[in-house]
Amino acid sequence: MPTLYHSPFSRSTRIITQLMLMDRLDAVDVRPAVVRRQDGSGHHDAANPHPEGKVPFLIGDDGMAIRESNAIMLYLDELNGYPLGIAPGQPGRGAFLSWMCYYGGVVEPAMVCAFSGEVHPAFATAFRSLTEVGAQIEAGLGDAPFLMGERFTIADLIMASAFQWAPQLTPDNAAVRDWVARVTGRIGTVPVMEYEEQAKAALEAAA
Amino acid sequence: MPTLYHSPFSRSTRIITQLMLMDRLDAVDVRPAVVRRQDGSGHHDAANPHPEGKVPFLIGDDGMAIRESNAIMLYLDELNGYPLGIAPGQPGRGAFLSWMCYYGGVVEPAMVCAFSGEVHPAFATAFRSLTEVGAQIEAGLGDAPFLMGERFTIADLIMASAFQWAPQLTPDNAAVRDWVARVTGRIGTVPVMEYEEQAKAALEAAA
Ligand SMILES: N[C@@H](CCC(=O)N[C@@H](CS)C(=O)NCC(=O)O)C(=O)O
Ligand SMILES: N[C@@H](CCC(=O)N[C@@H](CS)C(=O)NCC(=O)O)C(=O)O
Repeated sequence: MPTLYHSPFSRSTRIITQLMLMDRLDAVDVRPAVVRRQDGSGHHDAANPHPEGKVPFLIGDDGMAIRESNAIMLYLDELNGYPLGIAPGQPGRGAFLSWMCYYGGVVEPAMVCAFSGEVHPAFATAFRSLTEVGAQIEAGLGDAPFLMGERFTIADLIMASAFQWAPQLTPDNAAVRDWVARVTGRIGTVPVMEYEEQAKAALEAAA
Repeated sequence: MPTLYHSPFSRSTRIITQLMLMDRLDAVDVRPAVVRRQDGSGHHDAANPHPEGKVPFLIGDDGMAIRESNAIMLYLDELNGYPLGIAPGQPGRGAFLSWMCYYGGVVEPAMVCAFSGEVHPAFATAFRSLTEVGAQIEAGLGDAPFLMGERFTIADLIMASAFQWAPQLTPDNAAVRDWVARVTGRIGTVPVMEYEEQAKAALEAAA
């Protein structure tokens, strides 16, 4: 059984969401971990084996460590038969991998740039800005409800998580806003917020 | 047949390298493209359909677009039966996905930070620094020659490409330097530099 190091209301929340949406939360050993937060609260948790004390961090079925949310989500999806992804060899597989990697390689850096007000030209060249991210999502959606068409996938889950976390950075674009709302609606079908409240209370009680 | 938009001596060179190492360069339609370079040369090439005019950019077998080097490399590896990767379900698959995503989500941003001399704390929190990257590689290698053990994979190719491009940023660590040299040796078994010289001359002649 894989082991997930998880901190409530953090970047690992989307892994809990994925597991709940796949109905596989009981197939993973979830270990609550404290992390350092942007507001200065929290601390490095020695019980979390991530080399920099971050979450999410997964120990796979083979005992090997997996870092980075997009890698963890791809791994858990394929371990469970691709319920929320596109399998290798299926039409759209490449575009699906593209969204998963684009999230980590461009969207998250572009968010950090936007947050920090960074204007160094090297960042603008490498990651462009959230304007291009908005255009990419709008073009990717076309007339479909989700990034991969009719089916909701973990590409929607990870891509929309950026704007659920920082709604003020949502591109000013009706198609993007409507899609974020659709993804939020889908997440609302599982009790992830209740789970997170309980996990947070449990971590605080243990501190 | 997939179509690759490629600019010689750029981030897309590693895709050419992968194709040559798989002996599959003839299975992809390579279209040379001009890109804007850090030194101010080049320009946006209207013939390149990448939304921001970047390379690499791949149109997959299903006609759908794939951006981001790690996604393109994963796609081409699986299209060809995983000659340079770890297949789903095999031991190490999660760790392999982890390296591929770590490159895009951490190594490349950390390189941009190092280049720009960026010190905003948001970047240090999100991506840490090349010191942690060096530690991750050293721990990942252990006593093995390559990141996934005895087998050379595209995880080595993409991870080492950072330090082939910017040797001065190689972590000051013998294990990492030796591994970069091993990966460079492996790449040296295919005539990718000759290919790139010719592609560059052809692009210049056409300009
Ligand atoms: N690129 C990583 C980012 C992971 C990350 O930064 N997680 C935050 C939680 S929101 C963390 O653990 N921060 C603690 C720290 O930076 O020490 C991913 O997508 O998984
Ligand atoms: N994260 C992307 C980066 C792609 C990228 O920035 N490519 C450079 C070539 S080295 C480019 O096309 N630059 C042209 C530009 O920024 O306009 C990847 O790994 O594929």
